[in-house]
Formats: sequence, structure tokens, C-alpha cells
Amino acid sequence: MQNDLVISLDGMGGDHAPQIVVEGAHLSRQKYPQASFIIFGDENKIRPLIKKYPDLESVMEVRHTADRITSEDKPSIALRNGRNSSMRLAIDAVGRGEAQCVVSAGNTGALMAMAKFVLKVLPGITRPAIATYLPTKVAGHGTVMLDLGANVACDPKNLLEFGVLGGVFSRDILKIAVPRIGLLNIGSESVKGHETVREAAELFTAASHLPGKYIGFVEGNDIGAGTVDVIVTDGFTGNVVLKAIEGTAKLLASLVKQAFQSSLLMKIGFVLCLPGILVALPAFIALKKRVDPRSYNGAGLMGLKGLCIKSHGGTDGIGFANAIGVAAEMVLIHFNEKVAQAIESIGMGAAPAAVEPEEIMP
Amino acid sequence: MQNDLVISLDGMGGDHAPQIVVEGAHLSRQKYPQASFIIFGDENKIRPLIKKYPDLESVMEVRHTADRITSEDKPSIALRNGRNSSMRLAIDAVGRGEAQCVVSAGNTGALMAMAKFVLKVLPGITRPAIATYLPTKVAGHGTVMLDLGANVACDPKNLLEFGVLGGVFSRDILKIAVPRIGLLNIGSESVKGHETVREAAELFTAASHLPGKYIGFVEGNDIGAGTVDVIVTDGFTGNVVLKAIEGTAKLLASLVKQAFQSSLLMKIGFVLCLPGILVALPAFIALKKRVDPRSYNGAGLMGLKGLCIKSHGGTDGIGFANAIGVAAEMVLIHFNEKVAQAIESIGMGAAPAAVEPEEIMP
Repeated sequence: MQNDLVISLDGMGGDHAPQIVVEGAHLSRQKYPQASFIIFGDENKIRPLIKKYPDLESVMEVRHTADRITSEDKPSIALRNGRNSSMRLAIDAVGRGEAQCVVSAGNTGALMAMAKFVLKVLPGITRPAIATYLPTKVAGHGTVMLDLGANVACDPKNLLEFGVLGGVFSRDILKIAVPRIGLLNIGSESVKGHETVREAAELFTAASHLPGKYIGFVEGNDIGAGTVDVIVTDGFTGNVVLKAIEGTAKLLASLVKQAFQSSLLMKIGFVLCLPGILVALPAFIALKKRVDPRSYNGAGLMGLKGLCIKSHGGTDGIGFANAIGVAAEMVLIHFNEKVAQAIESIGMGAAPAAVEPEEIMP
Repeated sequence: MQNDLVISLDGMGGDHAPQIVVEGAHLSRQKYPQASFIIFGDENKIRPLIKKYPDLESVMEVRHTADRITSEDKPSIALRNGRNSSMRLAIDAVGRGEAQCVVSAGNTGALMAMAKFVLKVLPGITRPAIATYLPTKVAGHGTVMLDLGANVACDPKNLLEFGVLGGVFSRDILKIAVPRIGLLNIGSESVKGHETVREAAELFTAASHLPGKYIGFVEGNDIGAGTVDVIVTDGFTGNVVLKAIEGTAKLLASLVKQAFQSSLLMKIGFVLCLPGILVALPAFIALKKRVDPRSYNGAGLMGLKGLCIKSHGGTDGIGFANAIGVAAEMVLIHFNEKVAQAIESIGMGAAPAAVEPEEIMP
């Protein structure tokens, strides 16, 4: 049972489901050949797709439902009326212990609301958070950032808990021996920022046995600089910043494209560059892979008793396979057991789980 | 007097003062030949620099002071002990009406604190804000974003006022006929975000005669997309987002550089590209200029009775000349008169100016 790896899949979530879900599962088995899947959704659409990948036939169980959550559904409505949706059934499978992690490319707010309702919050954690990792200047080094939108407002203790969750992810999955944990702020001096972030800094400073080392306040430009391994912030700031980073990358790509198309001379210049580009193709491909958003697909809904991964809604099979990869790693390193140990050693004890997280999410 | 253009310069602010300040003034006169300057700082350092640019000798008055504000000085300390600093004296010149705008590359927090103390807040404005404009996908189109760090917490009315300030800047300086004004949030639906941003949305919706059109909530990725002309947010979010954008641009530049240096093949590929790059050089130069942070240097401290521009501390003469350019444009279009008209037409009346803005700044 230790090495069991059963992933529950929302077969109908996201812009290109169920194609990307089935293809992603197929691709993920290159790295995780022991993985098996339970996929929830419209079997008339899913079964023909599975036929294309014979390796899946024996390891993917289809459970039919015609019901699905759309990207427009409000979390509260999804929670009330979505009991037979592919998303909810996929979460239920983790709740019952049939699968060890659920992966969905569907509505983030609905996924968080349902996952919280079904799976419940881990002892010692007040609020779950959404976390992802982002590329940095340092090769092979990703920075974990959380919360990305589960909680629009956070108190200092929430932020400390996010630090523990992110620290365990960085240490045990990204294999950073002692993750450097920073609090996102508008300056590095202790007087900077609002009360919540300053009080959180006191909690981090006082906490012993963190899964990492608290290094103080960090700023927006530290995210890509690789000066820190875990960046802790509230869900409002985290969500806006994550989208601003994505927007900036798109902007720069668009400006380069515009420049190449700007004039006949530039087009001729580009053609003259082709031999050089061909010679250097492997390095170009490596660069492209390094900045490819699909390489960073798979945000963890952390702090719940069951594991749940959110994939970008617009990703393709390769991106979805990466989200399954994050799920597989979290299962294989026993993420929640590591979090429980971290919470115990930091002496946060069992927090009152009564606080109801916000329902509003990106 | 209408076309007078006297700029007061903090000759000692920033990493490379006074060199960049004198060089920037010289360069700015290409576009603003009518400009004259009063520069405050160490005359032993400044006078030899002026000698290098004979055009400045008749239009730059040097006023000596050996005192300066450092980047480590806290705003409150600077305010108390910096009465003879180059920064304070430069602001005082605007307060006395000797100059129409002050430009400083020094400590932002100290600059805002001193400018607020000396110049006072405009009637109808509760809190001044820091604003800059950023490049977008749309050629020749910049998005104005504010607040970038003057106010870590903002109430809905502050955000409405920022919208007015940014709208006037976009309309009268960037020449956008009807600026689209958006509130930065974590989603576009009206239920998204925290109470402050939702209440601000109600104020914007109810406001008639805005200097622009309120288009609702925008997200982080809208900043570079050119879908909006003015982005309004609190100073905490704005500051973190601005630095995250700068960090992302630096990250991508660094990754491209790393790729070109990654292998011998890539280096050979680069050499083979050189003829093409030479042919297309003008377009490359245009692209470089478009993403050059110096092109966007010069953040306005808006909402004060006198005009004040903050330059990046690490910029060079070209960047500082751009900051002087922003100052010149704000003087020449009579920015504060336009703001006063906008405040009157929106019916915000004279706000109680008693609320003390935060002293903590980036």
C-alpha cells in the first residue's frame, strides 16, 4: 500500500476536457508507471479517448456522470447543486480513500469549496491555501508561492501556517535542504508594511523548528530572483501578483514577436538568423521549456486532509501530465504526514478549525 | 509666465547623483529647450559637472548644501532632521513658487513625507499617491498604475481619488481621450475581492463626470495587456506588483542570456545570427527602447499642491532626463488645475484633509 498511486481525475474540468485529462494521464505514466486512475465524467466521450492509449485501458477506471461544474458556477452554488458533478465525485473518491489525490482543471473556487467540505482541514491548519512554484534565475530552482487566492484576507497565524505548508513542499518535493521562507512586503525593513504582515513576521521569528529558515521580508522582485524558496502572502496579493507575472511574460513575448514582424528588414534579419537558430536549437528548446507555463502547471490546495491539485483550465495534455506529476510527488512523499510532523514540531498544536475560509476565489 | 518651466532638482538623491542629475537636465533640454533648473547639493561636485555641458551654464542655478538624505533614512527622521538636505531644499523651492516641479532620485518615503509636509494635499484629495506608467502590448499605449506604495492601506474613497488622479494623467498627458479606469482585483465578477475594493467599485459606478470611464475590476494580467488605461489599487498591492513585474522582466532577460551562454553550439549559433541581427538592428533597437525601464522612469507623487516626481534611484542620465520630461509635461498641461477641475466636476468637494497618510513607504 505504501507505493500505491491512485489518482482521481475530474474528467470534465477545464477548457479542453476530457481530451487533455486522458492524454495527461497517459503522458504521466512515463514517469510514474505505477500510477492508476479513476476518471469521472461522460463515458461516451472518455472511452473513445482511452482507446487511443492502450496502456491506459487496464489502469484507468471510468465512472460515468453527465453532470459538470462550469467556470461560471459560484462556489456556493457548486457546493449545493454539484453533488453528482465530475469534480465532486472525483473529490469524494479521495475522501473515501479510493484514491490518494484528485486533479482537476475546473473552476478553482468550486474546487476549493468542495475539497474543503469533503476533505476537511488538517489539524493545526486554520485555512487551506493554494500554492504553486515559479521559475527563478537559478537553474533548477523554483520558488513556492502561497496563498494564490483561497483567502482574500489573512491573519498573521494564517500566514505562519502557509509558511509551514510551503516549507514542507519546498523541502520534501523540491528537495531544498533548508528552505528560505520570506514574507512578501513592500520593503525589507521591519517597520515596512501593514500590521498583519508585521505581526506575522514576529510569529515567524519566534517559531522554532520551522520546515526551513525564516529570512524576513522579501519584495516583488525577489520572486524571480531565486533569493528565497518560499514566499508567503495573502490570497489577494498572491493572486494579483501571479497574474501580473504571467501578464508580463506574455507582454514581453508579444513585444519580441511584434519587433520581428515590424519591418521587411527585420523579417530578412530573421531569415538570416535561421542557420544560427538551427545550430543552437537544443538550447532554444531548453529555454522554451524553462519558461513554459506548462512546466509549472499544478497548484496544490494545501492544508486539507486529502490531496487536491488544480491544473490551469486552458492547459494541454503535457501541462495536465505535469499537474498529475505534482499530485504523484505529493502522494509519494506523504505530504500530509510531513505537514503533520512539521506542525507538531513547531508546536502550533490543533488549531480551532471553526474559522470558515472565504468562498471567493479566482 | 504661462510657459515658464523651472524645475527644482535634488542634486544628491539616488545612487549616481549628482552626475545623472546634471546629465539628465542637459539631455532633457533637447525636448524642453525652455527649461531652466535650480539644483541643490554639493557645489564642489556639481559645478565641475555643469562645465561639461555649456548649454546648462546659463540655465542651471546651483544652491549649495552639504546635507543629504540617504536611502536608509526613515521618513520621520528625514522630516525632522533633514531641513537642510538637498531633497528638502528642492521641495521648498516648489513650495515657495520658485520652481514648478521638483525631481528627486532619492529615498521615496522621505520624499513623500517631506513633499506632503511642505506642499500639502490638494483640496478634495484625502491622500496623495505614487503613480507611474507601464508598457503594454499596444504600441504607444501606456497604462497608468497607482498607488505604488504611498499608502499601505486605503479606503474606498482613497481609491476613487486615485482613479481621478490617474484619469487626468492618462487623458491630459498620455492623450487618451476617454481613459478606461479599472480597479485591480482577483477576478472580474462583482462578488470578487475584499470589502474595500467592492465598496470602491460602488463609488466608481456611482461617480459621474470621471476623467475617463470606469470599466470594472481588472486582474494582474490586464496590466500589460493594454485593456485598461488606469489601474487603481492600494499601495501595498501596487508596490508588490510593480516590483514583481520588474523582477519578471529581469528574470526573462537573464534566462535568455543564460541560454545563449549555455553551450558552445549556442555560442556558434549566436555568431551565425550576427549578420541577421545587424540587418535587423533598427527594429532590435526599437524593441530595446520599448522595454527599457528608463523609458518609463518618473513616478508622479500626485495629489499634492505642488508637483513632485520620483526618479528610480539607480537610473542613469537618460532615465533621469525622462523623469524631468514627466515633470515638464505635468507643468505644461497644468496638471493640478486639471485635477482640481476633475474633482469639482465629480462633486467630491473638499475632503477632510485631516487623515494622516502612512509614513511607511518603499
